[in-house]
Amino acid sequence: MDYQRYGFIAPRGGIATGADEAAALATRLGFPVALKIVSPDVIHKTDVGGVELGIDSEEGVREAFARIVNSVHEKMPQARVEDIRVEEMCEEGIEVIIGLNNDQQFGPVILFGLGGVFTEVLEDVSFRVLPITPDDARSMIQEIKGRVLLEGYRGQRPVSRNVLVDLLMKANHMGLELAERLDSVDFNPIAVWEDQHRVLDCKILLRPSGAGITRSEPNTAYLDTFFKAKSVAVVGASATPGKVGNAILDSLAKHEYEGHVYPINPKRTEIMDMPAYPDLASAPADTELVVAIVGLHLIPALIEEAAAKGVHNLVIVSGGGKELGGQREELEHEIKRQAAQLEVRVIGPNCIGVFDGKSRLDTFFQVRERMLRPPAGEVAMITQSGTVGIAFLEDASFGMSKFVSYGNRADVDEADLLSYLAQDPDTTVIACYVEGFDQGRKFLETARQVTREKPVVIFKSGRSRQGAQAAVSHTGFFGGSHKVCQGAFRQAGLIDVDSIEELVAAAKALALQPEAQGPRVAMISNGAGSMIQAIDLLEEYDLMLPALSPQTIESLEERYPPYYLAHNPVDVTGSATSQDYRIGMEALIADHNIDLIMPWFVFQDTPLDEGIVEVLSALSHTSPKPILCGAMGGPYTRRVSQAIEAQGVPVFLGVQEWLAAARALSYRANRE
Amino acid sequence: MDYQRYGFIAPRGGIATGADEAAALATRLGFPVALKIVSPDVIHKTDVGGVELGIDSEEGVREAFARIVNSVHEKMPQARVEDIRVEEMCEEGIEVIIGLNNDQQFGPVILFGLGGVFTEVLEDVSFRVLPITPDDARSMIQEIKGRVLLEGYRGQRPVSRNVLVDLLMKANHMGLELAERLDSVDFNPIAVWEDQHRVLDCKILLRPSGAGITRSEPNTAYLDTFFKAKSVAVVGASATPGKVGNAILDSLAKHEYEGHVYPINPKRTEIMDMPAYPDLASAPADTELVVAIVGLHLIPALIEEAAAKGVHNLVIVSGGGKELGGQREELEHEIKRQAAQLEVRVIGPNCIGVFDGKSRLDTFFQVRERMLRPPAGEVAMITQSGTVGIAFLEDASFGMSKFVSYGNRADVDEADLLSYLAQDPDTTVIACYVEGFDQGRKFLETARQVTREKPVVIFKSGRSRQGAQAAVSHTGFFGGSHKVCQGAFRQAGLIDVDSIEELVAAAKALALQPEAQGPRVAMISNGAGSMIQAIDLLEEYDLMLPALSPQTIESLEERYPPYYLAHNPVDVTGSATSQDYRIGMEALIADHNIDLIMPWFVFQDTPLDEGIVEVLSALSHTSPKPILCGAMGGPYTRRVSQAIEAQGVPVFLGVQEWLAAARALSYRANRE
Repeated sequence: MDYQRYGFIAPRGGIATGADEAAALATRLGFPVALKIVSPDVIHKTDVGGVELGIDSEEGVREAFARIVNSVHEKMPQARVEDIRVEEMCEEGIEVIIGLNNDQQFGPVILFGLGGVFTEVLEDVSFRVLPITPDDARSMIQEIKGRVLLEGYRGQRPVSRNVLVDLLMKANHMGLELAERLDSVDFNPIAVWEDQHRVLDCKILLRPSGAGITRSEPNTAYLDTFFKAKSVAVVGASATPGKVGNAILDSLAKHEYEGHVYPINPKRTEIMDMPAYPDLASAPADTELVVAIVGLHLIPALIEEAAAKGVHNLVIVSGGGKELGGQREELEHEIKRQAAQLEVRVIGPNCIGVFDGKSRLDTFFQVRERMLRPPAGEVAMITQSGTVGIAFLEDASFGMSKFVSYGNRADVDEADLLSYLAQDPDTTVIACYVEGFDQGRKFLETARQVTREKPVVIFKSGRSRQGAQAAVSHTGFFGGSHKVCQGAFRQAGLIDVDSIEELVAAAKALALQPEAQGPRVAMISNGAGSMIQAIDLLEEYDLMLPALSPQTIESLEERYPPYYLAHNPVDVTGSATSQDYRIGMEALIADHNIDLIMPWFVFQDTPLDEGIVEVLSALSHTSPKPILCGAMGGPYTRRVSQAIEAQGVPVFLGVQEWLAAARALSYRANRE
Repeated sequence: MDYQRYGFIAPRGGIATGADEAAALATRLGFPVALKIVSPDVIHKTDVGGVELGIDSEEGVREAFARIVNSVHEKMPQARVEDIRVEEMCEEGIEVIIGLNNDQQFGPVILFGLGGVFTEVLEDVSFRVLPITPDDARSMIQEIKGRVLLEGYRGQRPVSRNVLVDLLMKANHMGLELAERLDSVDFNPIAVWEDQHRVLDCKILLRPSGAGITRSEPNTAYLDTFFKAKSVAVVGASATPGKVGNAILDSLAKHEYEGHVYPINPKRTEIMDMPAYPDLASAPADTELVVAIVGLHLIPALIEEAAAKGVHNLVIVSGGGKELGGQREELEHEIKRQAAQLEVRVIGPNCIGVFDGKSRLDTFFQVRERMLRPPAGEVAMITQSGTVGIAFLEDASFGMSKFVSYGNRADVDEADLLSYLAQDPDTTVIACYVEGFDQGRKFLETARQVTREKPVVIFKSGRSRQGAQAAVSHTGFFGGSHKVCQGAFRQAGLIDVDSIEELVAAAKALALQPEAQGPRVAMISNGAGSMIQAIDLLEEYDLMLPALSPQTIESLEERYPPYYLAHNPVDVTGSATSQDYRIGMEALIADHNIDLIMPWFVFQDTPLDEGIVEVLSALSHTSPKPILCGAMGGPYTRRVSQAIEAQGVPVFLGVQEWLAAARALSYRANRE
């Protein structure tokens, strides 16, 4: 495999079969030179003493030649040692690493890092999914901590950024050509200096054939009916309170959903005052959606029944699928095949199913007394974990359009749902929780389209090796390296966050406020302590705290008492009233240095009157800049916060959530 | 300043005044050699071309000599170039850095790191406050990421850990001797290999004299009265609702506190149906505590009045002190001097004052309708920020013994309070929030004593440069480098956390559960999603997830249905009942591989019956291992969680808080 055809340059040099030939070659190349073993059996040359560097005389070359031959014979007696390559030594440069890998979740990916400790000890590398653009390449370089070494560290001349981008694009080209046979390619290292490079070592592992770069289109057929079905059959309906099959029936039949509900249970003629049917075939003909809470071995027959009845929508709540491995995994494959063949869309198994903000249809086995349903709103959520979905739903006071817990995704997956939600007129913001991808590339390609239309926030867990392993037994997929996900998410324009709390915060901010024009925040508060904690975290959240303009400072100093501090953050002290906040926020909104207005409140401080609700409402109606409030506290703080949110201004009850919200609103401006 | 007297070894070598002498010296030393400029005017030798390395011939030495002289003359014409030092080159080793600094908050401190990019680019260094023990030295080495390089990276022989510890102890000795004149000492770098070392460069900056290692004893005189005063005078009491001076009066006079309250206001004869007094002198003679809400310029006279009346306790709520700089800073100094002289203990200014769980005395200007007061309990909190204190108090359902917001600490500081609380029989756990220290060393010395008796948790903000600057204007102190604080806290045995939420979580866990024997957690849940997120974070929280013992697995598999997963974490699925949790937790408590029992609950899942409250209560009474619960959700989840906490088992409503609690309980076992 010749990497030079992709434009990579190897050091000048040639092959010598004996010490004299090597010495003559070295003289022609000019000293110093390097000697390297050439053998089809040796992959790690250094480990067997197969490399000698910096040899600066003919005599030295002869000695080094002998040492290499002896050492390789001794350490690897079976290796065929045919020749030794004599090479020019490179200028003293910086060593970078470029790699191509075939990732389990995403297929061909590219890696960039610095040589030595940066990669091996610090794991300071960045990833992207192939293909990449030159902009992707630039951001890969920008992401690594060691980049300062490329910018002229300790008086060295900086390495040309364009050369590095060019190298990454060459590797991109190589990766695309090799995609179907790619196992791994390691340019490790490439010496780079100024605008030059030389590949000092390259290992290429190919395999007979593989998937390469797959193209898989999302399938949105029939998805709408999961949310708008006019009648639902519950297969496995139970008359026993506390049972899953009872709770789902209660959720559907006894609350806000106005469609028909048909309990299916062969042992009962009536459940919860409703007529029960022995099987799906006997249920009324207008059945549009089936919810199943029965052993997975019964599902294939159920899909056939559904198809025969003209039903295209099935939610399988029951678990016991591939998370247990073995035969059960095979059962899920069968469900998948059958669903495709009979055009029955399947959500689950191992999930809590769906919820629609408008039709109020939900398939949850969490009864109303235990779990709030959010009001109708603009946020949609899709989640691999029902548990995380529940936490999100109960915090979604901002309102939701649609919700899907898709569990083991035997059929309907993230990409299908994302594509559907992109077209959904009720949805303006999408939140995702994922533990591991099955078809990562399908998801990314879809997300890349969708994020052009609507902001999509994602929280990906299963990051650590142990966490990823837990994700395996949970839903049957390997979580993979989080660095690859981070790079992929960035390419796709996804707003990535680090906890459920941040996922909720980002969705809330995007639902209630306009996006920001940049990352420059101004804070104002009657409690300075929280400001200090926020400032500590600004960099982590890609935010900046600029100085206020002189006009802002002047106008504030004119109108505030002398013990208020008119800088950023503005400190209006425990004496602040709602009018003090109004004065400050008006000035901040007018300040050209500021993109986001972030008031923090100690609502408990007695001087702060409840006129603040009206002040925020009025400012929010006229401000072109987003307003994000923060506060911490007990019942009173929560009550005032709710009153403010009812006016469309979000309040975040923790410093980190507050900052995550600001990051989400400035994410797209930051990317441009 | 000769560092060799402390046992550091310089490379062999000598001084040469001419090129020939240098060449002769080099021959005697053996090649290769290094040449280094010797000049009183040159501190950074490399910058002026004053160092040449790896010279391997007499001729080379002569040429290098000339190059150095020319280069220094050219780049620094005014520098006196007297001699050049010729030195042996060191074996190829690893370069480490040892530094001594005089830190603004803590005085003399010591730094350890690796040379080059590790220190300069990655800031991969560890700090401790002098003096250190060999154990401190070992943990300093253990803390840096680059330590793998010391353990035999890329086939090099490992560097002896004992030699590194010995070098740090030599520097410790040097730092202690020089303490009063210490500005900075930089051993940068020291080459180390196997059990050898050579100091390759050392810069020593001393100053005429300074504080050195200060000893300042905490002063607990009269502190008890802040919490137990039988009568309180409020200077600046106001009749206008919404004013600070009105709210404090309300807090003291109209709720649970049973002592006498005396409003002081020269313009009123009655406030809130109580007789008002024109000044402190006129107030009843049994006054024990004064709370002041008046301009700071009035405080010196007030302290005199208090002293004349035999009152030793003053809380100054008003701000407007050193946070505004200038003359106001001087005013605070005067208050400090006067308080010491007249034996009036002062808390504040710029604070919300004190609260006592038993006497129910509080000085808060946050009225009851807006801010909950916690029940009596075992946790004490001291805080520099009133805002943070308020958030803590409203979350302290576990109960509190004492609370102090000390603000600008003109007199009473963290160390005084810590020392007092160590002796307080009502307090078993202490929580601290600090933005910056005035007398860092006094705090540490005190904390080191106190943490032997009671666990002390600390959240230190003002970590970033910008955050620290904000702390300056807030309370007038520079926050300083957080790395120094981390090292210092570790030395003192303080449990450090990273947010208010974690501070509350750690305090709650320590108040309600026994400490753990180690960091090995077992999790069990009916919602696997939260487990995956927790596992991702285990390492960050110094926790481990061991395999369960074969007996545990066997007994669980025997008693659980086949679709429950009997590994760690135990997955009891959405079908779990309280009895399933009981069975699982009993097995985990009996498992010798496990130190902490961590159930996570999706209380919303209908099969999970409320018998869980009783199950947890019973297990908690008999388990020698701590039990920490986690859950997320809305009103029902909060209600069940409260019922469980009423049984003494803490429930944490977020994954990070849950883990922070586990880290706090295993912190002391981990340190040993």
